Amino acid sequence: MKPITFLFLALSFAPLSAQAQTGAPAAPAPDVAAILPLCAGCHGVDGISSEGLYPNLAGQKDAYLIKQLEDFKQRRRTDPVMNSMAEPLDAALIKALASYYASRPAQP
Amino acid sequence: MKPITFLFLALSFAPLSAQAQTGAPAAPAPDVAAILPLCAGCHGVDGISSEGLYPNLAGQKDAYLIKQLEDFKQRRRTDPVMNSMAEPLDAALIKALASYYASRPAQP
Repeated sequence: MKPITFLFLALSFAPLSAQAQTGAPAAPAPDVAAILPLCAGCHGVDGISSEGLYPNLAGQKDAYLIKQLEDFKQRRRTDPVMNSMAEPLDAALIKALASYYASRPAQP
Repeated sequence: MKPITFLFLALSFAPLSAQAQTGAPAAPAPDVAAILPLCAGCHGVDGISSEGLYPNLAGQKDAYLIKQLEDFKQRRRTDPVMNSMAEPLDAALIKALASYYASRPAQP
């Protein structure tokens, strides 16, 4: 196959390929922004808590935050507020929330 | 009372006052240094963990850390490693450990 023929075929299939990738309905982006104000009540807007009994979340380990939210959701870790907060979160939202806080600067 | 008389009396009672303050046997300083290497195995020497599932402790809230250590000790929060680690800690040592990690810089 001549290079020009290959290029033509490749370009011809490119839209199909893109369509195949996006053909299945994309998972909705987790609506972290809608949840964050609830978290901020105790953990601060950027994950720096203003209350000694509530932990800072900013800069915390991603995997640790995921595990804690899952543990709160499944009530393997018990806290009246956090059990209720975590219960409706699905895996994608837990992952997105953990990622958000892990990425915040740990120093205020 | 003349100022000079007051000064004389104040100086006369100063040693008694100091003795009264130190008369009772002082509580032994908690041996935080002996415990820290055990914590460092998972949480890093200065409280910055190198493993995603173990939380950073540096710069974390003092009161939160105290509560977690007490919860691990009383098994209100369960984790096989932390339950064993916290079990022998008394209140003074828990307080000293929490204070140590709370005072570490949160950014590595």
